[in-house]
Amino acid sequence: MKFFINDPQKVVDEGIEGLLTDPKLTKLDNFPEIRVVLRKNIDKNKVAIISGGGSGHEPAHAGFVGKGMLTAAVCGDIFASPSVDAVLSAILATTGDKGCLLIIKNYTGDRLNFGLAAEQAREMGYKVETVIVGDDIALGEDTEQRGLAGTLFVHKAAGYLAEEGKSLEEVTSLAKKVAQQMYSIGLSLEEGQKFQNPEESRLDKDEAELGLGIHGEPGVETISMDNAEALMKKATTQLKEYLPSAEAEYALILNNLGSVTPIEMNILLHAFRKSELAAKVKCLVGPSQLMTSLNMNGFSLSLLQLDEEINKALTADVEPAAWIIREFGDVSSVSSPELPETLPFEATTNEKVEKSLKTITEELISLKKELNEIDEKVGDGDAGSTFAAGAKKIKELIPQLPLDNSAELFISIGRILARETGGSSGVLLSLMFTRAGNAYKENEHLGKALNEGLQKMKEFGGAEEGQRTMIDALQPAFKVLAEDGNLKTAAEKAREGAEKTKKITNTDFGRSSYLSEKSLKDIPDPGAEAVARVFEKLIG
Amino acid sequence: MKFFINDPQKVVDEGIEGLLTDPKLTKLDNFPEIRVVLRKNIDKNKVAIISGGGSGHEPAHAGFVGKGMLTAAVCGDIFASPSVDAVLSAILATTGDKGCLLIIKNYTGDRLNFGLAAEQAREMGYKVETVIVGDDIALGEDTEQRGLAGTLFVHKAAGYLAEEGKSLEEVTSLAKKVAQQMYSIGLSLEEGQKFQNPEESRLDKDEAELGLGIHGEPGVETISMDNAEALMKKATTQLKEYLPSAEAEYALILNNLGSVTPIEMNILLHAFRKSELAAKVKCLVGPSQLMTSLNMNGFSLSLLQLDEEINKALTADVEPAAWIIREFGDVSSVSSPELPETLPFEATTNEKVEKSLKTITEELISLKKELNEIDEKVGDGDAGSTFAAGAKKIKELIPQLPLDNSAELFISIGRILARETGGSSGVLLSLMFTRAGNAYKENEHLGKALNEGLQKMKEFGGAEEGQRTMIDALQPAFKVLAEDGNLKTAAEKAREGAEKTKKITNTDFGRSSYLSEKSLKDIPDPGAEAVARVFEKLIG
Repeated sequence: MKFFINDPQKVVDEGIEGLLTDPKLTKLDNFPEIRVVLRKNIDKNKVAIISGGGSGHEPAHAGFVGKGMLTAAVCGDIFASPSVDAVLSAILATTGDKGCLLIIKNYTGDRLNFGLAAEQAREMGYKVETVIVGDDIALGEDTEQRGLAGTLFVHKAAGYLAEEGKSLEEVTSLAKKVAQQMYSIGLSLEEGQKFQNPEESRLDKDEAELGLGIHGEPGVETISMDNAEALMKKATTQLKEYLPSAEAEYALILNNLGSVTPIEMNILLHAFRKSELAAKVKCLVGPSQLMTSLNMNGFSLSLLQLDEEINKALTADVEPAAWIIREFGDVSSVSSPELPETLPFEATTNEKVEKSLKTITEELISLKKELNEIDEKVGDGDAGSTFAAGAKKIKELIPQLPLDNSAELFISIGRILARETGGSSGVLLSLMFTRAGNAYKENEHLGKALNEGLQKMKEFGGAEEGQRTMIDALQPAFKVLAEDGNLKTAAEKAREGAEKTKKITNTDFGRSSYLSEKSLKDIPDPGAEAVARVFEKLIG
Repeated sequence: MKFFINDPQKVVDEGIEGLLTDPKLTKLDNFPEIRVVLRKNIDKNKVAIISGGGSGHEPAHAGFVGKGMLTAAVCGDIFASPSVDAVLSAILATTGDKGCLLIIKNYTGDRLNFGLAAEQAREMGYKVETVIVGDDIALGEDTEQRGLAGTLFVHKAAGYLAEEGKSLEEVTSLAKKVAQQMYSIGLSLEEGQKFQNPEESRLDKDEAELGLGIHGEPGVETISMDNAEALMKKATTQLKEYLPSAEAEYALILNNLGSVTPIEMNILLHAFRKSELAAKVKCLVGPSQLMTSLNMNGFSLSLLQLDEEINKALTADVEPAAWIIREFGDVSSVSSPELPETLPFEATTNEKVEKSLKTITEELISLKKELNEIDEKVGDGDAGSTFAAGAKKIKELIPQLPLDNSAELFISIGRILARETGGSSGVLLSLMFTRAGNAYKENEHLGKALNEGLQKMKEFGGAEEGQRTMIDALQPAFKVLAEDGNLKTAAEKAREGAEKTKKITNTDFGRSSYLSEKSLKDIPDPGAEAVARVFEKLIG
């Protein structure tokens, strides 16, 4: 396991320093001995909301300091409670006459250190209230319910009322209500790895665990590794047992415990959507990294029973960007637009055009084997087949084509090539003909239209003349036609271009770029050769 | 490597379905054959902004659909371009008279499929513009500059102007300007692993790579694994070479390429802060998962040269929560509050109190060896030392204590215990005495004050009577004192409590919870025993 760190001992300090490039945040100047992150502009006429605890749970807690959430966060070492002095410093630095609320996750160290700091501050005359958060349902309803990601619900609700200028009593009352009606559980495939001494996972490759803590505490249950849906079902089944009321509505936190990718988090959300609990959930926080456990490959669910007051508090605007909340609803869809038919134009006749089209397509069909043989030496050996397949389809469709309208004809050929020819050469030629058709509508000049089509193909295909592609033959030939030259000159130029490709041995474009100079020498690019042959046949 | 997925073939579909639980988003109903995510309420009087490409880069691109950014995202398979029909469907579903802009990352497949769809839509009469984004500097200034996370700058800038009702020409012009003045580079420690066939990393444990693509393309350079600061320096040095103007100011995207933890991302930000480029950066997008490459353990930097117009576009409000922007500034600090002195009260004398204090502390000092021996059988063997150390410190400080003021005395003892006694027992006793002091101020009743202190200790310590702790002796004794009983009765009750702990063999609290019933039988809890001994000594 490789990490982006400098010194394992400095992970917490440097992480905080990075966060502090946000000018809305600052720290106390006895950092890093004492690690308190606080808002730069504190309104001491409002209740201060203070939380914190061990580090390794980022963005919690310092990432939630900001208007509408925390006033300050006190950060301990990785998974270790901050000192009493650190908590007391945070209280003294942020608390005015309205007092402060300490939001404490239910771990012995945090309870003791925050609790004692609260008592010391009270002794100094400060109004201090505390709320202890134990939302974990894994260990049953005893005193050891741990504080998990549900803690963020308490931060948000308390932060909202504080920002509204409410009293410490009102803020505390809501915080306690929220803390009492929420339920969390975690599920992990691999534990988080400490930066200092990464260890082997205690879980086999066919194991996962349910009901784990966020400090590497093992899950209450080791379960079988399974697909996302089955794993989610294990978690929701467990949660469901603890929900008090069948009618209640909930907010959900879907928390990434560390290293789950965003697409997997969305797959988990999709799996949750299929669970029995989904219909009860009205709004969603996440899915994102909110209360992590280092790089744990796991997720947690937290459900908070909603009422009007809580709903308002959760959805109110807030400064910390890590708090993301949105409605949670059913998946909807809208009608797909009708795509144009491949051949929407009326068929028309034009003998000359029909003859040319037949000549071109028959020539390409007949060149299949020869071009494949050339391509086997310099590419993947299917150039002949690709050209022949497109040509065959066009030839078949000649009776249905608008032969007497060049713009419509080019567009039709473009569509046939896009739908019926595989690979990028089909798209490239389709681009050329589609653009040529559009150009011809604006200016009825065959050569100029084809040349415009070619420029579009170059723009999106990325190749230029001289890179051993069909452009080496097309470009000089179309230039002649665009400048009103005749077909014979164009054919000569196409042949010249194709011959030149035999000498191009250092190309950085397409498949030939992987081949040695020797293996390319004296062999033409099959696309350019095909173009030259077609022109020669046309004047033939 | 374990993943939260159901079927590797359905990762993209199910990820999108999860995202679509956001009621502001919807999909075309020929999903999943065609995967277009679009806003539910589209204002066709505004320019539509469409992007997309291969999946595996979440939240890009569908996560950026919303007011102020994309109108629709077209999602291909993992790392594979969506089809021409899919792109065309997105155009037809979202585009009104004002037209649409396609933002295309510079990869052959995307260029061709988006390019052809654009041309087909034009043929159908739609106004369509395209901008090709190639912000990657790793491959030099050739046609192969790949589109990386800088693409999000283009989404945001174009999305802003579109939302403002500007014309397609204005939107396109800004998008092209942004695309032309930005510079990105990626650095990774481990590649992203495909869900289907996870592979061993091509990098050794002492290797990293610089200048990589977001589809598993190897870095241009394999570099030595190093600390975060050195790695960041490699990336910024490379970037610096490409920056055109010494005076310019920039916006920075610090993008998590997949599985880097938030604390490491902040460490990288701190490292960037130390680079030469830091002073040029005025605002920051991230650090977060923005344009990932599955679970790649890496980051990318993207710098966009700012001007007033771009700055306004980047910082305007936007619906997608994944777009996070803030000022990037210097780290600041504020003065730490002065913590109270350990002994802030004036020393006073009181012979009786002095005598009691001496008795208590001397008894605890003399019990050191005996209590340690008990604790060796049921705990970690240091209970005697801990009590003795606290007692010794208090005894030393007796001449400096406010002996004649019980509230101040309790608070002082609380402070001494907090600062001078290690471990949780120091904090617990400190909590008790501090609370007792505060309680005594309100109601000058020694027994009641001590009992209140004990309740606070229980609240934060989490233990109750009957769990083999000192509470078993303290609680019955303090109850007597709180109810105006005499010291002798209190001492008897303390002894009874201590004796009871000999019978408590199934406790789930503290260190004794790890021991067998047999090893606990007939041995008292050392804390409770200490309390009983002190009371007995006091009644002498």
